[in-house]
Amino acid sequence: MKEFLSRAKASAQTIATLDGKTKNRILNEMAEALLANSSTIVKANKKDMEAGEKSKLESALLDRLLLNQERVEAIANSLREIAQLKEPVGRILDGWVNDDNLRIEKVSVPIGVVGVIYESRPNVTSDVAALCFKSGNVAILKGGKEAEHSNMAIAKVLQDVLVKNKLPKEIVSLLPDATREGVAKLIKEDGYVDLIVPRGGEALIKFISKNSSVPVVKHDKGLCHTYIHRDASHSKALSIAVNAKCQRPGVCNAMETLLIDKEISKVLLPGLYKAFVDSGTKIKGCNATREFIFVDPATDIDYDTEYLANILNIKVVSGIDEAMAHITRFGSGHSEAIITENYSAAEKFMNTIDAACVYVNASTRFTDGGAFGFGAEVGISTNKLHARGPMGINELTTYKFKIYGNGQVRR
Amino acid sequence: MKEFLSRAKASAQTIATLDGKTKNRILNEMAEALLANSSTIVKANKKDMEAGEKSKLESALLDRLLLNQERVEAIANSLREIAQLKEPVGRILDGWVNDDNLRIEKVSVPIGVVGVIYESRPNVTSDVAALCFKSGNVAILKGGKEAEHSNMAIAKVLQDVLVKNKLPKEIVSLLPDATREGVAKLIKEDGYVDLIVPRGGEALIKFISKNSSVPVVKHDKGLCHTYIHRDASHSKALSIAVNAKCQRPGVCNAMETLLIDKEISKVLLPGLYKAFVDSGTKIKGCNATREFIFVDPATDIDYDTEYLANILNIKVVSGIDEAMAHITRFGSGHSEAIITENYSAAEKFMNTIDAACVYVNASTRFTDGGAFGFGAEVGISTNKLHARGPMGINELTTYKFKIYGNGQVRR
Repeated sequence: MKEFLSRAKASAQTIATLDGKTKNRILNEMAEALLANSSTIVKANKKDMEAGEKSKLESALLDRLLLNQERVEAIANSLREIAQLKEPVGRILDGWVNDDNLRIEKVSVPIGVVGVIYESRPNVTSDVAALCFKSGNVAILKGGKEAEHSNMAIAKVLQDVLVKNKLPKEIVSLLPDATREGVAKLIKEDGYVDLIVPRGGEALIKFISKNSSVPVVKHDKGLCHTYIHRDASHSKALSIAVNAKCQRPGVCNAMETLLIDKEISKVLLPGLYKAFVDSGTKIKGCNATREFIFVDPATDIDYDTEYLANILNIKVVSGIDEAMAHITRFGSGHSEAIITENYSAAEKFMNTIDAACVYVNASTRFTDGGAFGFGAEVGISTNKLHARGPMGINELTTYKFKIYGNGQVRR
Repeated sequence: MKEFLSRAKASAQTIATLDGKTKNRILNEMAEALLANSSTIVKANKKDMEAGEKSKLESALLDRLLLNQERVEAIANSLREIAQLKEPVGRILDGWVNDDNLRIEKVSVPIGVVGVIYESRPNVTSDVAALCFKSGNVAILKGGKEAEHSNMAIAKVLQDVLVKNKLPKEIVSLLPDATREGVAKLIKEDGYVDLIVPRGGEALIKFISKNSSVPVVKHDKGLCHTYIHRDASHSKALSIAVNAKCQRPGVCNAMETLLIDKEISKVLLPGLYKAFVDSGTKIKGCNATREFIFVDPATDIDYDTEYLANILNIKVVSGIDEAMAHITRFGSGHSEAIITENYSAAEKFMNTIDAACVYVNASTRFTDGGAFGFGAEVGISTNKLHARGPMGINELTTYKFKIYGNGQVRR
């Protein structure tokens, strides 16, 4: 492990200083190579699929795992798109001349060695490798065990392109010890690894957050609310609430609890009830909600649950203060929305709620690198530091100060 | 502890949303209150001084600990200066309209609850409290045991001003359990604390880095180099090298090892030797150095030592590549300098070296919030993430995205 990490770290300077044109050419070569080797990749994937079927993986998981010619083409296209992103390294983020006439530039630079731990979708292997490569970082990848053969086949193709270009193959590596113990070791190696990005189940993320001595940018749970203020447009409230819950209930930016002002609950609840029932949503409600619609009761445990399913809590609140207090208590700081036509209520909500993304009159489902216009998404950070919310490729860089002098010394 | 932390967290929203004018007025009131209570503070400090003398603290430490009327005035002035800094909260860092016609603003916001662990200078208590206050954060302070009474007296004055202004006194708190065990507990409370800033000895920082489940911005060691390239101006090389080592040898941005190109070592070493000896510097040298000047040998252990004293290693290198390899091996990523008139050498060094601050033709001693023009310094981060290098008050903020819609839903 140490030997591998030391080779990975040693290759960081090489990739960090590679120019954009070369990086983009290599990314396009990687796309070509994936296509040229698609039958090998699909064959490797068959092994994973057979093992998955044997071990009775859920069909949704099997579908995520599957690679065919079409999906390999999609993976290759994704690399081409990443090649087209604006160069993330060397952006001058700030600059000034200080009182000593030193010119100080704050410049974006690669983070160094980035470890990414993720689940069973093999396309993540090439996507993350490409994002790290384009941003000048060494990528150490640890995918799901179910996708082992697929990931190895993809990584080999990418590494062959690196070697053909006389670059160290460690720039894109699979973690050699792909067990839980291997991960436990990796996250202690702060001398070699600069950042860990875990993408996966709650238990994995908790384990890594608690035990890592390497900084972690985590993609944790999203317990998101939509609050319908008394001055909301009823039509916007209805379409946004339904979209936030039902358009894709299994993702982190979907709504889990809908808060409604008491003053308009009687008018709005029947229409909301019908729309949600039509969308197949199971509703739980507070006592005040249950005065108007016939649903199961919602408890504090429900308010604290990220369903990741088409289930919704509805709670009637006395006004914006109670709504914000509920969100502060139960929210996970991911995405929170207010629906209102009232300027002051919108401002108060947007300024007070402490979350990565706060919305007025829009669905929380927009919390997404693609929807934000970042071009490619590294993940959605629930960290407060380094990166918060949707992470684009720029979030795979840090900065350094370049100071240009002419003989200055400190007095 | 939990009860205290829960009160601290609860007060975060209050301070986060306080307007700049009110914050500045309160900071000025705090300055006034410190002056009005200076005799109480000096009296409390006497207890610490007496205990320090009894336990035979070094005179340098005793001097750091001492408070008198003049120093209380300096502390008050520092608060007034912090009040005059530009408002760090609510800066619009980026903004655009996405393809769905959502207006997205990236806005600076307070981090939340910040724990700062520091040594025995009591002025740090009010400085850090004021910086956190101005940036909208709750400050949990844990100063050195030697300054216990001084810190308590200062904190009480600040808290009284908060209470007079009907604000929760927890906004500025001393950690109730100010033992090592108390710190060990604090750094595990990631549910309540958003950031830990340790300022202190290497052992403390290592302990916190390894054990904290709260993100840490550390102020770690500075093992800094100056490299004299063959095309250096000899006069600049001489004055910058002497300044980097001797102007204040006990600080993190002072030089520990001087690297000199072989081609000019014979010409430069005698003059450097004389200048360093005149400045009271003890020199150790590599074999090639010792051909020209009479000094003790330098070993790898020396190259790996942050002396924090007027001791210097000198090493002759074959050229820029060997110099950069030495810096990559032994540097701590703090501050590194090249002295040269050669454009391409300067560019290569500045672009390749991975450190918070890289210099051409200037002393590494400029790595400092004050020298950078930040107005007040939180510290110098040796982290790669969140904040790197000199930290101003803006580095006590994070960001959130505000998304302004008009009924948009995700398709």
